[in-house]
Amino acid sequence: MDAIILLLPVLFVLLNFVEVCNGGITSSFVRKLYASEDMPLSDFPPPPGYNAPEQVHITQGDLVGRAMIISWVTPLLRHPDYVVYWAAGSKHKKHKAHSSVETYRFYNYSSGHIHHATIKNLAFDTRYFYELGAGNVTRRFSFRTPSKVGPDAPYTFGIIGDLGQTHDSYQTLEHYVSNPKGQGVLFVGDLSYADNHPNHDNVRWDTFGRFIEKCAAYQSWTWTAGNHELDFAPELEEDVPFKPYLHRYHVPYKASQSTSPLWYSIKRASAYIIVLSSYSAYGKYTPQYAWLESELPKVNRAETPWLIVLVHSPWYNSNNYHYMEGETMRVQFESWFVKNKVDVVFAGHVHAYERTERISNINYNITNGMSAPVKDPSAPIYITIGDGGNVEGIADSFTEPPPRYSAFREASFGHAVLEIKNRTHAHYAWHRNQDNNAVVADDVWLHNRYYYPEEEV
Amino acid sequence: MDAIILLLPVLFVLLNFVEVCNGGITSSFVRKLYASEDMPLSDFPPPPGYNAPEQVHITQGDLVGRAMIISWVTPLLRHPDYVVYWAAGSKHKKHKAHSSVETYRFYNYSSGHIHHATIKNLAFDTRYFYELGAGNVTRRFSFRTPSKVGPDAPYTFGIIGDLGQTHDSYQTLEHYVSNPKGQGVLFVGDLSYADNHPNHDNVRWDTFGRFIEKCAAYQSWTWTAGNHELDFAPELEEDVPFKPYLHRYHVPYKASQSTSPLWYSIKRASAYIIVLSSYSAYGKYTPQYAWLESELPKVNRAETPWLIVLVHSPWYNSNNYHYMEGETMRVQFESWFVKNKVDVVFAGHVHAYERTERISNINYNITNGMSAPVKDPSAPIYITIGDGGNVEGIADSFTEPPPRYSAFREASFGHAVLEIKNRTHAHYAWHRNQDNNAVVADDVWLHNRYYYPEEEV
Ligand SMILES: [Fe+2]
Ligand SMILES: [Fe+2]
Repeated sequence: MDAIILLLPVLFVLLNFVEVCNGGITSSFVRKLYASEDMPLSDFPPPPGYNAPEQVHITQGDLVGRAMIISWVTPLLRHPDYVVYWAAGSKHKKHKAHSSVETYRFYNYSSGHIHHATIKNLAFDTRYFYELGAGNVTRRFSFRTPSKVGPDAPYTFGIIGDLGQTHDSYQTLEHYVSNPKGQGVLFVGDLSYADNHPNHDNVRWDTFGRFIEKCAAYQSWTWTAGNHELDFAPELEEDVPFKPYLHRYHVPYKASQSTSPLWYSIKRASAYIIVLSSYSAYGKYTPQYAWLESELPKVNRAETPWLIVLVHSPWYNSNNYHYMEGETMRVQFESWFVKNKVDVVFAGHVHAYERTERISNINYNITNGMSAPVKDPSAPIYITIGDGGNVEGIADSFTEPPPRYSAFREASFGHAVLEIKNRTHAHYAWHRNQDNNAVVADDVWLHNRYYYPEEEV
Repeated sequence: MDAIILLLPVLFVLLNFVEVCNGGITSSFVRKLYASEDMPLSDFPPPPGYNAPEQVHITQGDLVGRAMIISWVTPLLRHPDYVVYWAAGSKHKKHKAHSSVETYRFYNYSSGHIHHATIKNLAFDTRYFYELGAGNVTRRFSFRTPSKVGPDAPYTFGIIGDLGQTHDSYQTLEHYVSNPKGQGVLFVGDLSYADNHPNHDNVRWDTFGRFIEKCAAYQSWTWTAGNHELDFAPELEEDVPFKPYLHRYHVPYKASQSTSPLWYSIKRASAYIIVLSSYSAYGKYTPQYAWLESELPKVNRAETPWLIVLVHSPWYNSNNYHYMEGETMRVQFESWFVKNKVDVVFAGHVHAYERTERISNINYNITNGMSAPVKDPSAPIYITIGDGGNVEGIADSFTEPPPRYSAFREASFGHAVLEIKNRTHAHYAWHRNQDNNAVVADDVWLHNRYYYPEEEV
């Protein structure tokens, strides 16, 4: 009799299992192939002028969008160590903020002077100018702050992952920049791929900083750490994980009571962005676990309807490349995502594109056999977008047949845009690099899980 | 047709599932209950004398057992900062080794001077004496080195977990010490439970050090970090994980090319001991993952037939307490344990005792539904022995019905002894505290997975 009772959950899995065995769309688009090589160093000249500030990038500097961390490198001298900034139309009223300055060594590489200055008390929805450097090497940039946090504040995010610095990377970034709608970037990890060069040649961290400046100096990029940020090289006596990344890319982790820049959250317009670290500890009781456990109840969907998670290693990925690498983190946190009705999870790592249905796999209890992804309206959509185009090339081997949880997948480089319209609707679109930017290769109208939890069609 | 093909693995799971649904033995032994309270501070007096060395403990100091790390605390003065030692019978030939000395602060606590001295080039299978302190507060201890590493070198380990410092803890340690066979202890994490006291009162780390000295100053204890070693307390502005533990308990991690004291390995007689950290990162590419991946091929079973893993959070545990907490690490590493035919995995964390059959659960591939523990002669036996007896009390709620993977389980405090006899056989026995030490509550003759991979009966 025990056996009969215990068959029931197995039957349940069986039924779901059949249901999920008709896969989604695998696009047959054939990409144009570039050689997977980083652009030559000569393609990344520093700006002209002695000790000119370079590698300028900005990221939100507080919880709500009224501060910005301005980061840059001065190659030779520590000074000038400040940023001058003013609101558009208020040029007479300039402010000055000093930077912290740090340097680091990595094997035989010595970094320039890495500056981080947080400018605060900014007005919402306002354009700001800022200047770095002094005299004839002064460089001017600008950015626009987001709207005040609120449920219907529209905002358009670009989503980019695994960018690197190849000709493909260049195309991806050009495509995104050419879209006038993009207001800020959610970056899902793997920045420079410096670690693919001999001795993790950290000059490639510098060239990457120069490469993305055309965008990252003007829009807030929200950073996620990927495996290529680890730079773990005990053979070079470099065994402190994330060393170059943590020196170069600061984030406002303390604003969300995090104790590490590798996991944190920000609010931006109507979105609550949670950034997690695939390569830090997340077992129960660990700092990241404890933080996420206390962070999720802080999300007020009435204020920020859109709950978005960024993580590098995808939990749902039907590419043979990196298949199932995210399982260890999925089994730890997935039930929390479902319980808290996360709208969408963006991941990178796999160098291809994939979007899932709303599915979950949280019923397994060791003895019930119930381990299978099943449709779940409370579950997030999982989007893998590690297709920025880097030195490792495309991941063009998908599992066959396509699993039912996969809605669309294609082995092309590209980027995505998430246009949050209001508390109920957001338009998500993925653009492949081979198309004109106006062409949408995959898109879906997302229905907010809190205000409009209807199935997307 | 697809559906039919896809039913096969489900059927497979089904069959296994039925097979594993008849549980093992749940012991009906009724333990005598103590109040779960730490012994009063007055039960842990420091040794008499000004600045007398205290909290003496030793652990293997190299890969093979020819070195020992001698650790102690001098409460008031840094000096004397050395250990004097000699082989039994060679009193005229004394050696001296200097200690590194460290101190730390934790909230409002300041540690004494924590000494670690590694004495090297010891002879195998030899008794050594060592002296700490000077003048009238000199204290003398002794230990015996293990036999030379080799396939038939016998060795008897004690196994203790989640010890704490209650009256139950006292019983556990007394029972183990009273067994003349024990040569060294495998400790599976959760030492002092200082973090259960207000502000993680680190005085409780000192009292724990005094408590275990009667054993740990005379036998090598192999340390595993548990969640109670995290001492992660951002509310006290103490957000560096493992701070007190790492200052107080050194291990020879560099000898096994580890970059962290939280994971490492040692050889001891005929055993290869791998220590893992449940509360550090273990995702692919992380330092612990990279280390274990390169460590496992180094294990030469012809030299060390017995491959033993220590980890705090159990992967197979049918107690409701901490149920499934180990899943995230299991899905990451279990296939490696099976492939490398680990003999036995010792874990703690759950304050009860459990021994499993040889089982594995490594066939799941997201879409095949094959997630269930099944019998596997290449798999380790998993032993949960977090029953040292600590301030949190016993975990006396097992899942019902007992799963088939569980061979024996009982909610009593105790310890175990593993007597390695030769390359093929080892006798494992668990002793509950309520019995005379001569009584064995659970035991099994282990058959070595490399030299004698027959089923245990
Ligand atoms: Fe990656
Ligand atoms: Fe524990």
